[in-house]
Amino acid sequence: MSTPTHHGPSRGRPANAIPTPQAPPPDILRCASMELVVTDLAASRKFYAEVLGLVVTEEDESTIYLRSFEEFIHHNLVLRQGPVAAVAAFSYRVRSPEELDNAVAFYEELGCRVERRPEGFVKGIGDTVRVEDPLGFPYEFFYDVEHVERLAWRYDLYTPGALVRIDHFNQVTPDVPRAVAYAQDLGFRVTEDIRDEEGTVYAAWMRRKPTVHDTAMTGGDGPRMHHVAFATHEKHNIIAICDKLGALRMSNHIERGPGRHGVSNAFYLYLRDPDGHRVEIYTQDYYTGDPDNPIVTWDVHDNQRRDWWGNPVVPSWYTEASPVLDLDGNPQPLVARTDDSEMAVTIGADGFSYTREGHEGEGHDLPSWKQGEYKLGNQL
Amino acid sequence: MSTPTHHGPSRGRPANAIPTPQAPPPDILRCASMELVVTDLAASRKFYAEVLGLVVTEEDESTIYLRSFEEFIHHNLVLRQGPVAAVAAFSYRVRSPEELDNAVAFYEELGCRVERRPEGFVKGIGDTVRVEDPLGFPYEFFYDVEHVERLAWRYDLYTPGALVRIDHFNQVTPDVPRAVAYAQDLGFRVTEDIRDEEGTVYAAWMRRKPTVHDTAMTGGDGPRMHHVAFATHEKHNIIAICDKLGALRMSNHIERGPGRHGVSNAFYLYLRDPDGHRVEIYTQDYYTGDPDNPIVTWDVHDNQRRDWWGNPVVPSWYTEASPVLDLDGNPQPLVARTDDSEMAVTIGADGFSYTREGHEGEGHDLPSWKQGEYKLGNQL
Amino acid sequence: MSTPTHHGPSRGRPANAIPTPQAPPPDILRCASMELVVTDLAASRKFYAEVLGLVVTEEDESTIYLRSFEEFIHHNLVLRQGPVAAVAAFSYRVRSPEELDNAVAFYEELGCRVERRPEGFVKGIGDTVRVEDPLGFPYEFFYDVEHVERLAWRYDLYTPGALVRIDHFNQVTPDVPRAVAYAQDLGFRVTEDIRDEEGTVYAAWMRRKPTVHDTAMTGGDGPRMHHVAFATHEKHNIIAICDKLGALRMSNHIERGPGRHGVSNAFYLYLRDPDGHRVEIYTQDYYTGDPDNPIVTWDVHDNQRRDWWGNPVVPSWYTEASPVLDLDGNPQPLVARTDDSEMAVTIGADGFSYTREGHEGEGHDLPSWKQGEYKLGNQL
Amino acid sequence: MSTPTHHGPSRGRPANAIPTPQAPPPDILRCASMELVVTDLAASRKFYAEVLGLVVTEEDESTIYLRSFEEFIHHNLVLRQGPVAAVAAFSYRVRSPEELDNAVAFYEELGCRVERRPEGFVKGIGDTVRVEDPLGFPYEFFYDVEHVERLAWRYDLYTPGALVRIDHFNQVTPDVPRAVAYAQDLGFRVTEDIRDEEGTVYAAWMRRKPTVHDTAMTGGDGPRMHHVAFATHEKHNIIAICDKLGALRMSNHIERGPGRHGVSNAFYLYLRDPDGHRVEIYTQDYYTGDPDNPIVTWDVHDNQRRDWWGNPVVPSWYTEASPVLDLDGNPQPLVARTDDSEMAVTIGADGFSYTREGHEGEGHDLPSWKQGEYKLGNQL
Repeated sequence: MSTPTHHGPSRGRPANAIPTPQAPPPDILRCASMELVVTDLAASRKFYAEVLGLVVTEEDESTIYLRSFEEFIHHNLVLRQGPVAAVAAFSYRVRSPEELDNAVAFYEELGCRVERRPEGFVKGIGDTVRVEDPLGFPYEFFYDVEHVERLAWRYDLYTPGALVRIDHFNQVTPDVPRAVAYAQDLGFRVTEDIRDEEGTVYAAWMRRKPTVHDTAMTGGDGPRMHHVAFATHEKHNIIAICDKLGALRMSNHIERGPGRHGVSNAFYLYLRDPDGHRVEIYTQDYYTGDPDNPIVTWDVHDNQRRDWWGNPVVPSWYTEASPVLDLDGNPQPLVARTDDSEMAVTIGADGFSYTREGHEGEGHDLPSWKQGEYKLGNQL
Repeated sequence: MSTPTHHGPSRGRPANAIPTPQAPPPDILRCASMELVVTDLAASRKFYAEVLGLVVTEEDESTIYLRSFEEFIHHNLVLRQGPVAAVAAFSYRVRSPEELDNAVAFYEELGCRVERRPEGFVKGIGDTVRVEDPLGFPYEFFYDVEHVERLAWRYDLYTPGALVRIDHFNQVTPDVPRAVAYAQDLGFRVTEDIRDEEGTVYAAWMRRKPTVHDTAMTGGDGPRMHHVAFATHEKHNIIAICDKLGALRMSNHIERGPGRHGVSNAFYLYLRDPDGHRVEIYTQDYYTGDPDNPIVTWDVHDNQRRDWWGNPVVPSWYTEASPVLDLDGNPQPLVARTDDSEMAVTIGADGFSYTREGHEGEGHDLPSWKQGEYKLGNQL
Repeated sequence: MSTPTHHGPSRGRPANAIPTPQAPPPDILRCASMELVVTDLAASRKFYAEVLGLVVTEEDESTIYLRSFEEFIHHNLVLRQGPVAAVAAFSYRVRSPEELDNAVAFYEELGCRVERRPEGFVKGIGDTVRVEDPLGFPYEFFYDVEHVERLAWRYDLYTPGALVRIDHFNQVTPDVPRAVAYAQDLGFRVTEDIRDEEGTVYAAWMRRKPTVHDTAMTGGDGPRMHHVAFATHEKHNIIAICDKLGALRMSNHIERGPGRHGVSNAFYLYLRDPDGHRVEIYTQDYYTGDPDNPIVTWDVHDNQRRDWWGNPVVPSWYTEASPVLDLDGNPQPLVARTDDSEMAVTIGADGFSYTREGHEGEGHDLPSWKQGEYKLGNQL
Repeated sequence: MSTPTHHGPSRGRPANAIPTPQAPPPDILRCASMELVVTDLAASRKFYAEVLGLVVTEEDESTIYLRSFEEFIHHNLVLRQGPVAAVAAFSYRVRSPEELDNAVAFYEELGCRVERRPEGFVKGIGDTVRVEDPLGFPYEFFYDVEHVERLAWRYDLYTPGALVRIDHFNQVTPDVPRAVAYAQDLGFRVTEDIRDEEGTVYAAWMRRKPTVHDTAMTGGDGPRMHHVAFATHEKHNIIAICDKLGALRMSNHIERGPGRHGVSNAFYLYLRDPDGHRVEIYTQDYYTGDPDNPIVTWDVHDNQRRDWWGNPVVPSWYTEASPVLDLDGNPQPLVARTDDSEMAVTIGADGFSYTREGHEGEGHDLPSWKQGEYKLGNQL
C-alpha cells in the first residue's frame, strides 16, 4: 500500500479542549507575516535579504520589513533587533476590517490578554489585534495594510532561488489534540496528521487558504515556533539555495533536506538563520479547498511520513525551536510534552526505525542495503 | 515600466448589464470539470489518457471519466461520444448540498432554463443543477460526488508531463463587460483584464479559488468554449508534453506555445484535441485570495500581454473555439461581437503590432532585430 | 516512424571540393571563442554582461573579454568596438602549441592568407594563427591562454539563466557539401544534416569535442556568421532568460524559440544582440564521440527538423546573418547560394509546409487543427 | 575562499608505481558498460528496467542487456544470473578494432592474465579483450558492437527519471596513488582528487571522454566496485527517481542523497540494487577536455567535498562495495588499505568533522545551528 490512509474529516474533540467561544472567530484569509526578534540585525539582513533574496520593502536602524516576490502587502517577515532571539508575532490577515472586532470578542471570551492598536504594531499595517492565545502564542490579526508592488513579473530581479510566497507557520505545543481543537474553533481545518495506533497525535496540519497548511501543530515542549516557510516556484529553486549556501561556505545553515515530504507531498528544505530560527523552503503541495477534502493520516512508524525517500530526520529538527514572546516582550515559559515524543518512538534503543510492519528488530540480521531502516541507524 | 498598471478592483457596471438577482448566488468553490462531446471517442481517449496521461476513473462504451493526479473527486473531464464536437457542461463544485437550491433560485430569477437531477447527469456526481445561463453557456453546479484515490503520492504512475489539477475554463462571449457583471453577480472576482484607452474590454479573468481564474471571458462571437486548462507542477512538465507530441508525430496538435503569459504570469501551452477542442497546459500563476487583490490591467497594445516574450499569437487562437450545447444537446447559436476584436486591433494593416507607445509605424525603417514588432509581421 | 533516418558516416566527396592538403590539419580541441565587432560597446556590454550574465574577465575602453561560468580560459567572447557589426574571428583551441605550425602549413598549402602573431591578437591569448579560410571565414587557432578562475562552484554569482559553456558556432555558406568536405579535411566529423530526396544538402553539423557540433554549415549567401551558442545547465535556465528579457521590455531581442530542436535534440533559444548578431542559448544535446557515431539525416520537408514541436521558423532566422571580416578588418563579399534555399522549399507559394509525405496541398480542405501544417501558414 | 585549490596537472609518480609498459595503451573512448552478476535476475530486471527505466535491448533466461536512452551501442549494462553478487567486467570502448592488439600487448607486458575472444564474451559485442588488471579488476576492451536505435528522440518512451547515458565507474582500491599512476599509463587524466596536508590521497577522478571521469579510484580495501553511474538530463529527473522509489515503498534502496557533489560539481543520488550493487544517478558535471584542464584538489577535511551542502555521508557509502571477479568467475581476494581511511579522518572520536580550519573542537560550545559540523555529529 503506497499511499497513506484517508480518513473522514471528523475526530472526537478531546476532553481537555479549551471551550469553544460563543463569539464567532475572525475570518482568517491566510498566514501573512512573522515578526522575528534577532540579536544581530546586520547578520539577519544578510541572511534573509542577500542570501535568500527576500525583498526589503522598508527598513530603519532597528527593524527590517521583507516580502516575497509575489506579495502585494507590505511585508511577510519583520526582523527586529532585540536581546533574545524569539518570535514576537504570528500574523494572519483577516477578510475585512470588521473581523478585528470578532478577534477581540473571541479572545476576550477565552480570557486571553488582548491588545488592539488602531495605528498598528509595525510599519505598513494599520489597525491590529495582538493576543496571547490560549496556547501561549503571540497571534496577530490585521486587515489594513499598505499595498506595494507585486514583483511577480520582475524577472530582472529574480535570483535562482527566488522566494515567491509566505506559505505557513509551524508551532510547537505539548498537547496536539488540544491545540487542534482550539485552532478548529478559530476556523482552521485539518488536512493531514501523524498518529499511532494508540491514538497519540504527534502533529497536525491545518489550513485557511486552500493549501495543506497555514499553520501546523507539532508536539513538543511549547509554546515555541518550529519554523516559518516560504515557497519557491520549482524544486530547482530550492536546490539553488543549497548550492549558494555551499558557495558562501554557509552550508552549516542547512539543517535538513532538501527532500520530499510524505506529509503535504511538498519538496522541502530546512535552514537555520543566524539566530537559529528555522526557515523552511517549500514547494508544490496540493489544493485542499473543498470542505470534504480527505484528511491524510500517517502512521508515526511510517518511515516515509517526514521524508518520502526515507532519509533520516536530524535530532535537532525534533528538539530545537524558537521561544515566543508575550505581549510585553518576555519569553513565554515552556510546558513540557507528556505524550510520547515522535523522535523517541521512531528511533528505538537500537537506533533503528522501521518502514513496514514486521520489519522492526530484523534489521541487524540484514546487510545494510536490505534494511528499510539502515539510514536511520545511529541517529541518537 | 516593466509591470502592468494596477487598478483598484471596482469598475462601473455596464448599462446593458443583466439585472442582479435578489437571490444569493450559489457559493462556488472552484471549476471542477468539463463535459466534452467528441466525435471519435477512441481518438479522444488516446489523446487525453495515453498522450496527456489523465487518469481514467471509469468508462463505458459512450463515455470516459478522467481526472488529474491530485484530484479526489470522481472526474475533471468527461468525454462523451456524440455527433458534433461541442461542450455540454462547464461544471463547478459548490460548498454544500444546499447551494444547489441557491443555484436554482438564482437562475430562475434570471429567467434561465434550469434542470435539476437528484441522480446527477453523469456518473460519479449526485444531485446536480444544469442551466442555460444568460450568456448561453451550459453551466453545471454540484456538491455530491464520489471520492476516489488522490494519486498525488503515486509517483510510480506519473508521466513526465503529468497533469495534476484542473485549473480553469475560458469562455468566448461577445460583450465582455456584460459577461463580467453577470459573473460578478455569480460571485466571481476579476483578477486581470485587457483593455484599451477607449475603454473597450477584450478579455477578463475571474476567480473563486484563489488563483488567477476559474474562468475567463474572452471577447468574440459566442457563446463558445475557448479552452479548458490543466496544471502541471513545473515548466519542464509542459515541455515534456511537447516533446512527446513530437515523438508521436502529433506536433500539429500544438497550437501555441509553450510560453510565458503576461496575463497571469503562468507558463502555458495550447493544444488542440482530435476534435479541435482547445486544452491549455498551465503552471505557476499567483495567489489572489485577498479581497483587495490588485487587479492587473493590460493595454491591448502591449505586445507582452498574451506572451511575455512577445511571441506572436497564431490567428486560429483568436478565431476558433468550440460550440456549446443547450440542455437539449443542440448547439447554441452565436451572437457576433460588435466591439473591436483583439486580433484586429493588435495586428494592423501592415501586419505589425507594437510593444511600446510611439513605436507604431516605425518598424519598416528598422532592421528586423531592432523592431519590437518584427515577429508579428506577416501573421495574417 | 518517429525518429529520423540514420545513415552511415560516409558520403561522397563533391566534385568541386577544395583539394585536401598534404599537410595534417591542426588538432582542434573545441570551438573556444568568437570575436564580435560591435557598434555600441556599452549597449553590447549591457546585453552580454548584465542581461545574459556572461562574466567580464577583463575590459578596456575598446574591448570586453567575457567568459561562461564553467570556463577556465581567459574568454569565450570578445566584444570590440568598431564601425560595422561583423565577426572578426571564429576561434578554436588546439591540442598543443605545436599544432599552430600545422595550422600554418595546412592553410598555406590551401593558398590562404595566414597571419601568425606570437603575442596574440587579443588579450589573454598568446601565440595565435589567423587565416582567411577557403570559404572566406576568419578562423583563429591558439593553444597558449591565460587561465582564470573556473566559476562552476560559485553559485553565489549564478543568475537564473547562467551560461556555463560556449557550445558552438554556426556559419552561413553557399555550398554546404563543399564546406563540409573542407571541414572534414580540417578534422571535423559530421553528426547530423538536412537533405532532400534530390541530394541537396541544406545544412550540416560537425564536431571536434563529442557534442553534436563545434560548428555547423548552413546554406545561404556567405560567408556570414549565423550564430554563436552558449549552453545552460537546464531548460528552465533558458526560460529564465526569456522571462528576464520580458521584464526588461527587451522581448524584441527574442527571435525564435524557446523550443526543442529536431536536429541535435537540444532545447534552444535564439536571441539577437544590439547589433543583430545572433546568439543561441542551448542545452542538452548528446554524446557523439565514438568514431561510428550514427549520422542523423533529416528530410528538409520534415516539419520537425528545425523545431521538434513543429513551431514555425521565422523568416529572419533564415535570411539574416552577420558579415565576417578579412584579416584587414574589411567585410568579406558574399557569394550567393545557387542551390535551393531551405526557406523556399519548406514554405510553398500557398504558405504551407508539410510534415508527412502526401499531406502537401490538402491543408486547405481541413480545419486548421487537423492540418499538420496550419501553424506554418501565412509565414511569408 | 569558496572554491577549492587548483593545482597544476603533474604530481610525482609514486615509488611503488607499477612499471609503465613500453607498449602503447589502447586508445580508450569511454566507459561503455558494466557486467554485473546478480543473484535474482527477476528482481534485478524489475529494479533496472521497471523502476529505473533502462531499456532492455535483448534478454534471455540468464542475461539481460540494457541501455540508456541516448545510447546507440547494444548495451551499457549486463545483468547476469550467478551465485554471488559481483562485477564481471568494467567495459571500455576503444577507438578502433586495432586498439585491441594494443590492449593485449599492454597487459601482457604488465604480466597480466589476458583473454581475447573474437566472438565476444557477451551478446552484441564482437572481438573483445578481457584482462585481470594489475589492481585486480576485470577490465574489458572492445570496438565491434551492434548498433541499436538511439532513443534520444523517443519522448513517448521517456519516464520522469529517464537515464540517458552511462557516465562513469568508481573502483575501490587500497593504494590510490599507485592506482592513479597505472590508470595514467592507460591513458586516463586526473581531473579532481581528495588529499590531506600530509599528502595522503583518498580518492582521484580520471577521464578519457571530456567529463570529470570515466572512472574514479576510491581508497579502501580492494579491488571492489564502488558504483556505476548513469546520467539524467536534469536534476528533477533524479528527484523523480526518489519520488518513485518512495511510491513503490522502496525508499530503502536510496543510500545517500540526492545532493550536490563538491567533487565534480554534479548533482547526485546513490541507490543500492537488490544485490547491494551501488548505482549513482548523476547530472551536470563540466567539460574537461583541454590538456591543461585544471585539476581540482579538495582537502579531506573540507566538509563540502563529498556533499557541497555539507550533508553527511552515511558510513555504508564508505565501507560497502561489490566484489569483482577474476576471468574464471571467482571473487578476487581483497587487499586492505593501509593509508588512513577517509571516514576515519573525517569523523573524529567526538563524532564531529569540520568545514573550516580552526573550527575543529569548538563545536561543543556552540548551539547546534552555529556549528558547521553539527550535521555530522553522531554518524558513527
